[in-house]
Amino acid sequence: MPAVSLNLTTDVVELTRALCDIESVSGNENAIANSIETALRAYPHLDVTRDADAIVARTSLGRGTRVLIAGHIDTVPVADNLPTRLETIDGVQHLWGRGTVDMKAGVAVQLKLAAELTEPNVDVTWIFYDHEEVDATLNGMGRLSRNRPDLLEGDFAVLCEPTSAGIEGGCNGTMRIEISTKGVKAHSARAWMGVNAIHAVEEILARLNRYSLQEVEVDGLVYKESLNAVLISGGIATNVIPDSAKVTVNYRFAPSKSIADAEAHLREVFEGFQVKVTDASAGARPGLDQPAAAAFIAATGLVARPKYGWTDVARFSALGVPAINFGPGDPNKAHADDESCPVDQIYSCEAALRKWLTA
Amino acid sequence: MPAVSLNLTTDVVELTRALCDIESVSGNENAIANSIETALRAYPHLDVTRDADAIVARTSLGRGTRVLIAGHIDTVPVADNLPTRLETIDGVQHLWGRGTVDMKAGVAVQLKLAAELTEPNVDVTWIFYDHEEVDATLNGMGRLSRNRPDLLEGDFAVLCEPTSAGIEGGCNGTMRIEISTKGVKAHSARAWMGVNAIHAVEEILARLNRYSLQEVEVDGLVYKESLNAVLISGGIATNVIPDSAKVTVNYRFAPSKSIADAEAHLREVFEGFQVKVTDASAGARPGLDQPAAAAFIAATGLVARPKYGWTDVARFSALGVPAINFGPGDPNKAHADDESCPVDQIYSCEAALRKWLTA
Repeated sequence: MPAVSLNLTTDVVELTRALCDIESVSGNENAIANSIETALRAYPHLDVTRDADAIVARTSLGRGTRVLIAGHIDTVPVADNLPTRLETIDGVQHLWGRGTVDMKAGVAVQLKLAAELTEPNVDVTWIFYDHEEVDATLNGMGRLSRNRPDLLEGDFAVLCEPTSAGIEGGCNGTMRIEISTKGVKAHSARAWMGVNAIHAVEEILARLNRYSLQEVEVDGLVYKESLNAVLISGGIATNVIPDSAKVTVNYRFAPSKSIADAEAHLREVFEGFQVKVTDASAGARPGLDQPAAAAFIAATGLVARPKYGWTDVARFSALGVPAINFGPGDPNKAHADDESCPVDQIYSCEAALRKWLTA
Repeated sequence: MPAVSLNLTTDVVELTRALCDIESVSGNENAIANSIETALRAYPHLDVTRDADAIVARTSLGRGTRVLIAGHIDTVPVADNLPTRLETIDGVQHLWGRGTVDMKAGVAVQLKLAAELTEPNVDVTWIFYDHEEVDATLNGMGRLSRNRPDLLEGDFAVLCEPTSAGIEGGCNGTMRIEISTKGVKAHSARAWMGVNAIHAVEEILARLNRYSLQEVEVDGLVYKESLNAVLISGGIATNVIPDSAKVTVNYRFAPSKSIADAEAHLREVFEGFQVKVTDASAGARPGLDQPAAAAFIAATGLVARPKYGWTDVARFSALGVPAINFGPGDPNKAHADDESCPVDQIYSCEAALRKWLTA
């Protein structure tokens, strides 16, 4: 199938529609990657590199500063919400359909500016990557950082994930632990022969309920932390005293803490219990003290807020590149069957990035 | 297939083996029921009635007292533990294999005495029934009580379930409830937008841990009660604040309490929570104040203990017939892959019942 031809300089909402209407559920990004690669290669001011279904397009103007502007091209599965359509919701015009929020509107802004800004005031590396919506081991940006770390060098990064067109700096880290209790099985008719592992969970929940949440200031933004049981299970049958129970706890911690800090803290909170770390990702500092970030905030006139959800900005952070999230669409509509993005946010993101890169 | 021929007057351990070696997992009792029916019909002192795969054999000597002696003929699934074999375990001779404890040794004692005691000192109704090990709605004794309640009339009943050849009177009742908590779902990155339903379980577990267990005397036996969480579940995914959690609690209550008493008590204990009764069976009073029971205890010289597990004695109790459990085998070995019954207990149960019925 020949690649769908994309006109990168058309209206950015039209470009968003064209991108959304190329179905690209994770694992099926080849067609859209082909279209993007072909379209970008038409612009001589860009050096285009392809790695599997990720495409990197760079200016090489010899500027003193290089910024990375990134977005993923895959979506979660379609839920009878393609092709896109324009719709007025509560008096506001929206582009409705899978990918409009997460995150092809952001990708459209990237592509239009990549094509049109032949001489930005900083060097720009435009990154379009695959496999963001699936297991982290498949993540296209992770693969790029292993295969071509040179392409991810820069002073500051913008990830065009949806933020309702506001600036959201960095992100909290996240850690999941399993806390287990043990008991002794017995028939529940002779309960005193056993030891009830579910009853032992009381103390775990008591510590969670007593826990004082912290707010931590990092680079001028205040991050709210949280500590919550997310899963609980235990028991064998309705006539057996249970010999094991398990609580899965999710800790969201400020980006000033390392994974080791977070683990040490949880082991202290749940001292006396068996704790197993099952999953951990460090947060990302917002890096608002970087000159490129300050310029971005000044150019857009927006006020930065902290980002709570973990995003790929943490991958930039791990590479030593401070990063913010900035993109059209309400993140609460991401993955929703009624995913839809206010078109004015697409235009305002385009205008803000253009202003910053041409100021 | 012609029925396997049973010699009811052979050695009771040999008869137990013959019964065990006719595989009769619940739902597959037809062959063993045919063998039992054919064998019993050879004895003119017995009136034999069949209802599906249950068989009732009665003497009609015009005695002033009628006792019911019952046992089920089905087993739980075979676990590579048939055919039976004789084995010496810790210096004690055992009959090993599925059904030896639960409860074909008891059935063998019944059959041998049914055949041999042509003139017992009370009228005896010997009951052999199907589908005890499965859903209560299928229980053969329950079906008999609906189809032929006249056959279950009597003054006292002995259920030959395993009691290590001791007398266990009555049984505790059992009730299961589900206690639910509700919350408000939210992404765990923005936990403060939600309300955690798992955290709300703390108070349920606290009440269970604080609960004072009662010992209740009924007809001279002391019943220990218990209240335990047996299952717990909650949560949706490791990145979602859970909006619901559920604790299943099993209450074992003394036979002096009705189901309504038990429910009212639990609703008081868990006041403020949503409580749903999912399952309830009343207990059975031991009825040791009945003359036939007193005669049984006097004849055997045994000391009665309370039974904790729920058994079909409660069905007799519901019909107004006090009942005890008395049979060979350790109940802890019932359903075990290494199910095995000390042969001396089979002989001692035979001797005790014989002495009682001929004293």
